[in-house]
Amino acid sequence: MLLWQANSLIFAPMELQNDILLRVANGQTVERPPVWLMRQAGRILPEYRAVRASLSGFKELVETPALAAEVTIQPVDILGVDAAIIFSDILVIPEAMGLKYEMIEKKGPSFPETIQTEADVERLITDEDAASELTYVYDALALTKKQLAGRVPLIGFAGAPWTIFAYMIEGGGSKTFSKARRMLFREPALSHRLLEKITMTTIAYLKQKVAHGADLIQLFDSWAGILSPKLYNEFALPYLGKIATALHEEVPVTLFAKDAWHALEGLAEQPCNVIGLDWTQNPQIARQRVGDKVALQGNLDPCQLYAEPEQVAQAATEMLKAFGGQHIANLGHGVYPDTPLDGVRAFINAVQAFRY
Amino acid sequence: MLLWQANSLIFAPMELQNDILLRVANGQTVERPPVWLMRQAGRILPEYRAVRASLSGFKELVETPALAAEVTIQPVDILGVDAAIIFSDILVIPEAMGLKYEMIEKKGPSFPETIQTEADVERLITDEDAASELTYVYDALALTKKQLAGRVPLIGFAGAPWTIFAYMIEGGGSKTFSKARRMLFREPALSHRLLEKITMTTIAYLKQKVAHGADLIQLFDSWAGILSPKLYNEFALPYLGKIATALHEEVPVTLFAKDAWHALEGLAEQPCNVIGLDWTQNPQIARQRVGDKVALQGNLDPCQLYAEPEQVAQAATEMLKAFGGQHIANLGHGVYPDTPLDGVRAFINAVQAFRY
Repeated sequence: MLLWQANSLIFAPMELQNDILLRVANGQTVERPPVWLMRQAGRILPEYRAVRASLSGFKELVETPALAAEVTIQPVDILGVDAAIIFSDILVIPEAMGLKYEMIEKKGPSFPETIQTEADVERLITDEDAASELTYVYDALALTKKQLAGRVPLIGFAGAPWTIFAYMIEGGGSKTFSKARRMLFREPALSHRLLEKITMTTIAYLKQKVAHGADLIQLFDSWAGILSPKLYNEFALPYLGKIATALHEEVPVTLFAKDAWHALEGLAEQPCNVIGLDWTQNPQIARQRVGDKVALQGNLDPCQLYAEPEQVAQAATEMLKAFGGQHIANLGHGVYPDTPLDGVRAFINAVQAFRY
Repeated sequence: MLLWQANSLIFAPMELQNDILLRVANGQTVERPPVWLMRQAGRILPEYRAVRASLSGFKELVETPALAAEVTIQPVDILGVDAAIIFSDILVIPEAMGLKYEMIEKKGPSFPETIQTEADVERLITDEDAASELTYVYDALALTKKQLAGRVPLIGFAGAPWTIFAYMIEGGGSKTFSKARRMLFREPALSHRLLEKITMTTIAYLKQKVAHGADLIQLFDSWAGILSPKLYNEFALPYLGKIATALHEEVPVTLFAKDAWHALEGLAEQPCNVIGLDWTQNPQIARQRVGDKVALQGNLDPCQLYAEPEQVAQAATEMLKAFGGQHIANLGHGVYPDTPLDGVRAFINAVQAFRY
């Protein structure tokens, strides 16, 4: 297919020098797995911390394209990963829909206003009206793409509708997201209406991301694991499927439903290219469950990188053998901020030295 | 076997009027499932909140036998559940081992001192020396047993060694418990040494609980789900097995490894009577995985109780049919504090009206 190439021609008529990630996502056979890390543009890098320290807060970094581009490219320059992922936040979508958020240091996101009633849902800005608010994201993508100059592909992302819904109802992080889950039980029709609005807005947003340079799109369903299979199949999976359907002819799509161990078969039925795995999944069993239509991404325990570099390399190699192919090497979750760089480098180097 | 009867003779020579929980745990066929709720002695009851409001804090309630007995019995009187579970806290074990904790309102537990080095591990009080510190727990059990006067069985509990380890390293709750997991990767031998100490102390503690009236013991592995299967099998499951081995000839043992979806087969291989399921498990598939040696406990989504009572009753009945027998009805996690009592009653009543 290589439709991503057609797209990238829109704004950057250049071949990628390293397209191994996209070849795997598009089902091609490669000599070794590509590797990148969720949250690679972040606090593990001293260079990131230096940029961040000069700013008033996390959101200033998200909203300033030149700075977002800078930290997006840092791990490509410093760690040599096979992909960049645009520095941003999944919560720009609820904000564009009308719910401003604050990022509170050491605590996480907080929404002063939340969604509780039908009137709250009706009041939301949606679709292109909301997506068009996020020009700073698109500018960051275009600038990053230009500065990458074809070195590696650029990944765009969004939160999955259920995860965004959870924040919009709950108003911040939560151990249980019991308010959001209560809404599914008490107001199923209203829940679907809100999920539909988030979905349509996310599609408009991601199409803009693709138009501005994203070569692959990943959807993060960070709170997938707190839903029962029945609720996941009713309130989460169909909306992931809608987004994948709207995008997969333009760019490869990765679905990552963290901790939804029961959902692998359902995810693989969506029109997607890659399924992300957390570290509780066994690579071989996961492959049996999804068949051979999709690539798998993951899934080293982020805490493995705290071990000595030789142990990290050994664990990485064992993982690569367990996947055996059709695989994008990554952790099973975002890299933890206090991870030693030696461990990160040992992981990346082990993958890049590996040959099938 | 009915060994629990032999034990109960030690201090309370009376037959239980309602022993349906123990009959299911001991593999007998019953006319309907027994029902109780994790965290039933707690904030869902106005009567509990009234007791709690009169005190300086949560720990005063845990450490005052007359009050602990009072709130333990409240759900038996008010809700008519088929078992009482002693009001206590899994963190009394690390405290008895030398790490005092505070319970901070709306935040959770906090340990001013944590375990970081070998010297920290060596310094811990263990076994009977630690268990003998917890006389207030044993007194609460004996008093509860007396006041229950044989109405329903009394459940005793402890945290699983991995979960207690996680708190002792981390110093409190955590989204990732990455410090505790880092210890497993960086200091596996020291980790095993600490887990062994927690295990031996927990055995001494639970034997005292049984001697003072516990008719069944449940082990809560609350943070089981953040370990990979490989780490769970190395650092968690063997210690659960040791505790089950030490206790199962005296009383039935329930193992509840929340979110460790991959561990069911391994749990069923331990000498235990009941396996608890969180709400992401499908009852039929779980039964296929564990075979017919154990009863299953759970697993309604706690958020289901926010729905209208008729819907709660319907969902409960569907769940009971899906389990089909060898089943102790419960939620898939502790009942959330803001759950409406109408929902709680609808659940309990639906179970008690059900017939196989």
